[in-house]
Amino acid sequence: MEACGEEGQLKLLGATRSPFLVRVRIALALKGIDYEFIEEDFQNKSQLLLQSNPVHKMIPVLIHNGKPVCESMIIVQYIDEAWYSKAPNLMSKDPYDRAIARFWSAFVDDKIVPCLRGVLNGQGEQQQKAAEESVANFLLLEEALQTNGKTYFGGDEIGLVDISLGGIVVFIKTMEKVTNIVLIDTDKMPLLSAWAERFYKADGLKDVLSDPAEIFEFITGWRAKLTSPPAGN
Amino acid sequence: MEACGEEGQLKLLGATRSPFLVRVRIALALKGIDYEFIEEDFQNKSQLLLQSNPVHKMIPVLIHNGKPVCESMIIVQYIDEAWYSKAPNLMSKDPYDRAIARFWSAFVDDKIVPCLRGVLNGQGEQQQKAAEESVANFLLLEEALQTNGKTYFGGDEIGLVDISLGGIVVFIKTMEKVTNIVLIDTDKMPLLSAWAERFYKADGLKDVLSDPAEIFEFITGWRAKLTSPPAGN
Repeated sequence: MEACGEEGQLKLLGATRSPFLVRVRIALALKGIDYEFIEEDFQNKSQLLLQSNPVHKMIPVLIHNGKPVCESMIIVQYIDEAWYSKAPNLMSKDPYDRAIARFWSAFVDDKIVPCLRGVLNGQGEQQQKAAEESVANFLLLEEALQTNGKTYFGGDEIGLVDISLGGIVVFIKTMEKVTNIVLIDTDKMPLLSAWAERFYKADGLKDVLSDPAEIFEFITGWRAKLTSPPAGN
Repeated sequence: MEACGEEGQLKLLGATRSPFLVRVRIALALKGIDYEFIEEDFQNKSQLLLQSNPVHKMIPVLIHNGKPVCESMIIVQYIDEAWYSKAPNLMSKDPYDRAIARFWSAFVDDKIVPCLRGVLNGQGEQQQKAAEESVANFLLLEEALQTNGKTYFGGDEIGLVDISLGGIVVFIKTMEKVTNIVLIDTDKMPLLSAWAERFYKADGLKDVLSDPAEIFEFITGWRAKLTSPPAGN
């Protein structure tokens, strides 16, 4: 899809299996913004990617009228601010609410994501420890939902924290299936479980969330590679 | 100092030797906001701290009219937004400039700080590796200054990235002295070196930057503890 309408020229570099890409797609879908998607090959990164994100050389990158924005949650905030007049707003106008949203969004990236990496890559005791830490983290999110008493983390509409966590939720649910480890426990985390169900079904998100079959295949293959001996002699 | 004037009641929980506290003090000093400072003891954290930051149990925490904000750079953004009408603004109004500021501020926390921790805590080869990575990171900041061509990272005035890095600059310079490792090389990083000098001397910051003598004593003591055998039998 060539996108050069009222939004200007908009390209999104990503890889469909990346949960970080999904965050950006959610923000663009919620705001109804068209863009050209360019699939990147991790083994053979494009010149455009290397030029656009010379520091991290990572996807996703949003290129708006030739100017690149990197790092998924920075891109999401950019989308909210650059298309501020386009509903919905992804952040509250209230400075305190904004600080709380940034706090939990950082918590997802700094605490939840590293522990999930531990579950994805770990074996035996090491994996068990990462799973326990993940559960402790999710219990803190359960408490946060209980404290705010709203439909979503940000209030009655999807906001920054919902996108931050929502982008990775298919990955989490699929990892539970592959590893047979429960991370978001329906009994202990009723609000978080209900939040995840609600997020899955939110208007307009069906087409941008990860495909569970693709993620299942990816995680299964990834873990098989971890346990098999290296090829060659 | 009891602070309950036009800003409302404002308390800042911190520890004077913490570079992360310094970031918040810089933001408050630039905006001319009064506050009550409460020194925390890391060995015996106050109930107020544990209640205000139950997730991380870390300083700094800013408590504004009884509502806590945690994490230094989230606090800095909160200060800018809650006292938006008070000059100077710490972030540009332009969404793209804001994204770039968030990118480099995240780079300081995600890349520079962990490598500096490696230099602070490491020995031998491990420390050398952390130092090399630190130098590579600082060279990227040198390039960023070259690209923007301005006095500060954010432009002609101190902004988010300047505060993020500026808060830890006394720590960096002191660590160089204690470890005898050059991290910000004047020859290879003339712009970054000039930036640091300029930042030190910026109006109103003298009283809030770390005291080099206190930081020297802290780092020296810390490294002595790393190399001495544990006490007891």
